[in-house]
Amino acid sequence: MRPTPRLYLEDLPLGEDLDCGGFALSRAEIVAFAAQYDPQPWHLDDTLAAASAFGTLVASGVHTQAAALGLMVRRIADVAVMFGGSLHEARFFVPVRPDTRHRVTARWTEARPSASKPAQGIARIEGTAHAEDGRVAMTFGVTYIVARRPA
Amino acid sequence: MRPTPRLYLEDLPLGEDLDCGGFALSRAEIVAFAAQYDPQPWHLDDTLAAASAFGTLVASGVHTQAAALGLMVRRIADVAVMFGGSLHEARFFVPVRPDTRHRVTARWTEARPSASKPAQGIARIEGTAHAEDGRVAMTFGVTYIVARRPA
Repeated sequence: MRPTPRLYLEDLPLGEDLDCGGFALSRAEIVAFAAQYDPQPWHLDDTLAAASAFGTLVASGVHTQAAALGLMVRRIADVAVMFGGSLHEARFFVPVRPDTRHRVTARWTEARPSASKPAQGIARIEGTAHAEDGRVAMTFGVTYIVARRPA
Repeated sequence: MRPTPRLYLEDLPLGEDLDCGGFALSRAEIVAFAAQYDPQPWHLDDTLAAASAFGTLVASGVHTQAAALGLMVRRIADVAVMFGGSLHEARFFVPVRPDTRHRVTARWTEARPSASKPAQGIARIEGTAHAEDGRVAMTFGVTYIVARRPA
């Protein structure tokens, strides 16, 4: 569970790269997730995937986004997040194949007080999943509503 | 598994509302998804959620997006999708509480041939999850690469 929040809107380390750790998705995880949430053939079946643009089974984009988000949320558990406002566009550059390790970094890019609610503000964080060879596999992000430091 | 594709880029029914069916997320599903992919307290624990901005346990945004996407992907299984290019920004307007029914609609908004690859094109589909009272709970979308009709 999250610790007592320590970082308020004013405390966010804008522009600093945060290391969120890494993930790898097993074949079984990829197939189970896709069967429920993104049943495209190239996420479900090796033979169908071999005939696809990918050539092998690959993880669903929303699965990749979720896996990276899970790491990012753990990394920023010391921030006084009130709730999430939106998921930014997620873009995919390198397919995520089973059991391949991906490292996730994130960076707060914006933090501004709310014009109407003095106790809160709006903060954007942008994340990147890096393939093992250093290529960017995915970019994603979240806009959060974050508490301001109590007066 | 998907049937033989019937709808190519040129066949997409631009602007037509597609009924994708409905979903409801149980408390157990919400907690299990969030524990892995979005461990915020208001997705995990009733007591912590009661003290949050939501007042009760609510589904993770990425879980809501995934549930709606799963329905949309099934609805468009007759389209010659080659692969997904991006997930559009997902915006959240009404919290998704356990066991509440949401209806999903989707609409192809754009379909244009690729400038460089004559056999394919780029198509955008925008989806909406509607709460039971008719309010828009979430908007989301996907950009897909879709095969053009064989000459």
